[in-house]
Amino acid sequence: MKNLQEQLKSKKTAMLLNEFRIGLEKESQRVTSKGELADTPHPKKLGSRSFHPYIQTDFSETQIELITQVFDTNRGTLRQLSALHEVVLRSMEHNEELWPLSMPPALPIDDTNIVIAKLEDQGDINYRRYLAKVYGKRKQMVSGIHYNFEFSDELITLLFNEQDEYVSIKEFRTALYMKISRQYLRYRWLLTYLFGASPYADENYFTTESLHQPVRSIRNSQYGYTNRPDIKVSYHTLEEYTTDLMKLVNDGELIEAKEFYASVRLRGGGGRDVQDLVDKGVQYIELRNIDLDPFEKVGISIDTLDFIHLFLMTLLYLEEESTDADKLIETGELYNNTVALENPLSKTEFYEEGAWLLEEMGKVNELLHETADYTDVLNSTLTALENPSETLAGRMVTEMTEKNWTNTEFGQYYAKKYHDIAFEKPYQLAGYRGMELSTQILMFDAIQKGIHVEVLDENDQFLKLTFNNHVEYVKNANMTSHDSYIVPLLMENKTVTKKVLHEAGFRVPLGKEFSTIEEALSSFGVFQDKAIVIKPKTTNYGLGISIFKDGATYEDYKVAVEIAFKEDDHILVEEFLPGTEYRFFVLDGKTRGVMLRTPANVVGDGEHTIAELVAEKNTDVLRGTHHRSPLEIIKLSDIEKLMLKEQGLTVDSIPSEGKRVYLRENSNVSTGGDSLDVTDDMPESYKKIAEEAVDALGAVVCGIDLIIPDKEVKGVKDSTTYGIIEGNFNPAMHMHIYPYAGESRRLTMDVLHMLYPEAFK
Amino acid sequence: MKNLQEQLKSKKTAMLLNEFRIGLEKESQRVTSKGELADTPHPKKLGSRSFHPYIQTDFSETQIELITQVFDTNRGTLRQLSALHEVVLRSMEHNEELWPLSMPPALPIDDTNIVIAKLEDQGDINYRRYLAKVYGKRKQMVSGIHYNFEFSDELITLLFNEQDEYVSIKEFRTALYMKISRQYLRYRWLLTYLFGASPYADENYFTTESLHQPVRSIRNSQYGYTNRPDIKVSYHTLEEYTTDLMKLVNDGELIEAKEFYASVRLRGGGGRDVQDLVDKGVQYIELRNIDLDPFEKVGISIDTLDFIHLFLMTLLYLEEESTDADKLIETGELYNNTVALENPLSKTEFYEEGAWLLEEMGKVNELLHETADYTDVLNSTLTALENPSETLAGRMVTEMTEKNWTNTEFGQYYAKKYHDIAFEKPYQLAGYRGMELSTQILMFDAIQKGIHVEVLDENDQFLKLTFNNHVEYVKNANMTSHDSYIVPLLMENKTVTKKVLHEAGFRVPLGKEFSTIEEALSSFGVFQDKAIVIKPKTTNYGLGISIFKDGATYEDYKVAVEIAFKEDDHILVEEFLPGTEYRFFVLDGKTRGVMLRTPANVVGDGEHTIAELVAEKNTDVLRGTHHRSPLEIIKLSDIEKLMLKEQGLTVDSIPSEGKRVYLRENSNVSTGGDSLDVTDDMPESYKKIAEEAVDALGAVVCGIDLIIPDKEVKGVKDSTTYGIIEGNFNPAMHMHIYPYAGESRRLTMDVLHMLYPEAFK
Repeated sequence: MKNLQEQLKSKKTAMLLNEFRIGLEKESQRVTSKGELADTPHPKKLGSRSFHPYIQTDFSETQIELITQVFDTNRGTLRQLSALHEVVLRSMEHNEELWPLSMPPALPIDDTNIVIAKLEDQGDINYRRYLAKVYGKRKQMVSGIHYNFEFSDELITLLFNEQDEYVSIKEFRTALYMKISRQYLRYRWLLTYLFGASPYADENYFTTESLHQPVRSIRNSQYGYTNRPDIKVSYHTLEEYTTDLMKLVNDGELIEAKEFYASVRLRGGGGRDVQDLVDKGVQYIELRNIDLDPFEKVGISIDTLDFIHLFLMTLLYLEEESTDADKLIETGELYNNTVALENPLSKTEFYEEGAWLLEEMGKVNELLHETADYTDVLNSTLTALENPSETLAGRMVTEMTEKNWTNTEFGQYYAKKYHDIAFEKPYQLAGYRGMELSTQILMFDAIQKGIHVEVLDENDQFLKLTFNNHVEYVKNANMTSHDSYIVPLLMENKTVTKKVLHEAGFRVPLGKEFSTIEEALSSFGVFQDKAIVIKPKTTNYGLGISIFKDGATYEDYKVAVEIAFKEDDHILVEEFLPGTEYRFFVLDGKTRGVMLRTPANVVGDGEHTIAELVAEKNTDVLRGTHHRSPLEIIKLSDIEKLMLKEQGLTVDSIPSEGKRVYLRENSNVSTGGDSLDVTDDMPESYKKIAEEAVDALGAVVCGIDLIIPDKEVKGVKDSTTYGIIEGNFNPAMHMHIYPYAGESRRLTMDVLHMLYPEAFK
Repeated sequence: MKNLQEQLKSKKTAMLLNEFRIGLEKESQRVTSKGELADTPHPKKLGSRSFHPYIQTDFSETQIELITQVFDTNRGTLRQLSALHEVVLRSMEHNEELWPLSMPPALPIDDTNIVIAKLEDQGDINYRRYLAKVYGKRKQMVSGIHYNFEFSDELITLLFNEQDEYVSIKEFRTALYMKISRQYLRYRWLLTYLFGASPYADENYFTTESLHQPVRSIRNSQYGYTNRPDIKVSYHTLEEYTTDLMKLVNDGELIEAKEFYASVRLRGGGGRDVQDLVDKGVQYIELRNIDLDPFEKVGISIDTLDFIHLFLMTLLYLEEESTDADKLIETGELYNNTVALENPLSKTEFYEEGAWLLEEMGKVNELLHETADYTDVLNSTLTALENPSETLAGRMVTEMTEKNWTNTEFGQYYAKKYHDIAFEKPYQLAGYRGMELSTQILMFDAIQKGIHVEVLDENDQFLKLTFNNHVEYVKNANMTSHDSYIVPLLMENKTVTKKVLHEAGFRVPLGKEFSTIEEALSSFGVFQDKAIVIKPKTTNYGLGISIFKDGATYEDYKVAVEIAFKEDDHILVEEFLPGTEYRFFVLDGKTRGVMLRTPANVVGDGEHTIAELVAEKNTDVLRGTHHRSPLEIIKLSDIEKLMLKEQGLTVDSIPSEGKRVYLRENSNVSTGGDSLDVTDDMPESYKKIAEEAVDALGAVVCGIDLIIPDKEVKGVKDSTTYGIIEGNFNPAMHMHIYPYAGESRRLTMDVLHMLYPEAFK
């Protein structure tokens, strides 16, 4: 690795330092609201651990492990971790929480009450039984974060091309990772100082040992999650590393290579551990020494991730202190163990080296400056080096002292806080709140079921789902491969929709389309004496629409036709159908939900003004703005005030008890209307008509609108008991899932069931 | 039918008089350009007569019969007839024409050379053999138009509700049609006068009889297409009509009811002739006495159709002259036969009655005035009543005299004229020229193959196709049920397209999407030293695009990023791929056409100026404007002049022989570019890559654009021999079908083949 520092200083190389790939794994204990280990099995809603790509259990049945995909930014990884976190919290028993600390909560005195994860594979169970025996169950209950890091191919290729020490890129890449691993082991104490966050252990944690607490990180100390001191592996070369590791396994010192609990583990990028390393060289490294940050919902902050990235780049940049790998590691272990057991509020013994490291990081930050800027993170780290109370352990200890909390009380406080946050807006998914609601809910369901989700285009709501090797693309949560291309085009065209439904024998508002005033007038005869609507073919906020509920005179008809033609060059004259409009959501041949939408309204109580009633109704967690909630805030703008005025009311009027006051004419949810699920009240006869009509359109996913004069009268296909207004190929789903009143219909799960019947077996 | 006139005078009823349904059948003889009967079989391109809904043969193999669907306007019917006409003309041998006269062309002296239609059904052949025997083949060779007319249900219902003479609507409807039929038989002489158009017979037509010519209508006279004088059927009631008809058949006077050649035939609306009439009453009537109008391409004008409609309404309106149906018919026959045999240039004997009829028609026109206005048609008819030379027969005779033409020469002139018109713009379809070209061509092909076409929405290019009971909807000629909904959505999104293709192992310009300038700058490293394009995610006429063929400096990159962000809130930075862009049209797994598009250009000849060369190139029948032709006119606007200026040229420059001068930078066909079919020159290796890429996208119909640096180098999937730019879900088809140079690829037929393999067996 000669001249690496010079190479990294070149602008060309520096430009690539911010290109990398990262994946996170995060463990945490499932506890009751009392801070005790949950005694329930792994939540059934989270699908099967035999294949779940995101949500597994580690050692115990209560130790949930979240696994992100690999992303090329820290932010991308963190947001998926947030989403996984939220899915888990909402999928557990309602009184269960996730323990926010690396050190486990109060453990049962009786070891048998620490339940090993109930996995399907007997080998997996046996491995855990072995660990329980060798390390004791209590140590295995410690949780943390693993950080998987990979350089970009571009960087490695560029560096490789500018050196002549290594002839193959595989060897070169391996040498890079070996260097960074040695350096990490040497200097990781700085991370333990800054981000160590396990100052206290519950009294039942230590059975044979004892430790004066608080410290910076029990987990990163010799009392944490480590191998016996005599388990040593060389990091000098990959060959020595793998040879040592295989010898330990062959000698029976380790049951498998994965029992080697180093702070940094070399990874060969496959499922065969050591053999992959031998075959492919090092593909990425796994950092295993990061404690859970209790001040972060998901256990780690973006600043910490950014710091670790800059730290790794700096380790690459720095010359190694010695060519003796074992000595480096020995020094590193000594430093780290010392720091881990320091009092969190004391200055560290290695302050000088820390200051030097941060200074070097500042240099690397300079190199990076055109692609990334970690100055703020560096500055706050500098502060923390000066002021131990700014480190994670320092903050924890300070807060516990200030609030007079025990470690358990501290954990309980944050466990409950993050639990409550996850339920604040149960219809949104953390990390993806900018996407459409229905897509967020579908993503939630897919993650829950163990279907792999990739956001191909966030602004386009375009997802790629994978289950085993079965790929499906979904847009807007309802557009799938199951519908054929021509069907939405057909439904997009109201005239064509009606022709098709009419020919199939359904009742649609009969009508005609016209492209000239003359044509429209020449057809007056067929519309005379009928209730009709005259409207532009493409309607735009109701402009140009005239309704004649009792038929029109020729003169009125003519005026209405002229008005409609002002808005579009094609108009429709249609039969007007009286009755109530219901939205039937039909999926895969079956009515999944029936919705009645009513205009924005409040119900009086004889005491409060309309303004007060509106304000009260708007406190509903389901109401929000800008389509980020299933229902919209009811406004009191000019339109609503005018509507009140027409009823002889103002916002200060006090409606009598039970009196419903409407604030809008239109029933759109987007203007504060209510969505009422009436699926169970809707007679089968109408559901059947809706399903048959959707079938006639050839649609698989369809929101079809029926006007029904009286739903207590049995619906008959060839009759006027109903009329079909239109079919929607992009029907809203969230309003069925989170209705204002009535039962929730989990349509997103129905979509997944349709796409992946195999995942629902 | 009491008070019918009063009823019709009410505004309510009058408003419905313009609501009706009409279908046309039109026969004509297929002839050579010499005006002789064609001796070729029915054109093979026109599919099988065993099912063809539009194109059949009547008596002889040469007598093509066109059958329109039923429409609710005269114009709708006429335009389909125009289309059928054009399909037939373009499907025949190139030297064959359609005879524009009702009277057949010069017939062979030997009867055996008049070939009976070679139908599959033996019964159909036997029927024709019988007719040949009873009437002689020559009379069966006469052609004409049948006009099927039906009142609107609304009119019949309204009239029915306001009377108490009939208790069932079936009887009432039948009575209406019986009245109109009697009236028609009584007054049809007026149509013979005005529209009779068979003044002369070829010398070989009469074998036993002789007739002094010219007359108004041989076809409508006793020398035309009539039964023996003693074949009489009562029109008094439907019962008498059906009884008489069945008796004639039972007595062996007629072989089938359809041998009854009345000018108006009652129809029961089914395939069982008389039995349908008995069961369902009269459903519509068929007028059979209309001669082919040689001055109209399709044999009848819109004015004639409008006149007939008004005439029928007037017949309904007028009181009957007598309650003695037989007497009415006898009078009518006498009048009609007299008029048919009058000299075309003489005033008619029944001028007075004609004037009275037209006056009554004027009154009905008044009633109709709010829904239709036939004033112009009526006025020109009045003129023709005064001036026999304005009648069709009058005009024919006058023109023949003026031009010193025989009847045969007259027929030949118009046969050739209409033949030539049909080939003027072979890429368009008469009647539907307002629709997109590809849709017009698909409609042409469907009609040719005998697939039923219904235009569901003309402006939306939305067709319903039916073959037997197999329905398919098609939009833009390429959007079908065979593609799944998600695939076009996927292709619509360029980022998603590239991700999918990249994951499937195809070479796409690698790149990244950014939503902030900072993000874009932080990724400069991966793009440094590479040929790149920086562009807004949604491109709009090339605005905001920067190309760096030799890589960009950080500063240039930054400026380009800022420029792109001015056009969109998302930008793409992409690898720039050098090479030639080819469009591969892949359908159902196979490359059907490969196209190279070049910018507008002319090739010099050392003599003409650029302006002259452009003018010459623009005379190509394939070039037009507004996408109504496969290629666009090359303009000489400021852009082209600027492009010339940059080359040191003006429109008056004279390029040397063989020198190609480009007038545009962009190769769009819409700005005058050339389309070159290179399908056969494109190596299989690239076609296979295109097909596999389309398969990876999941598309069935796709226009995929490949950049190929050198097509003589074998294309390899995992290489830089090519790059995929994008997939198009609505790829232009007409440019492949009518390319500027190279072979035509009939993609529309491929689409039909895909949708209806059963129609291609």
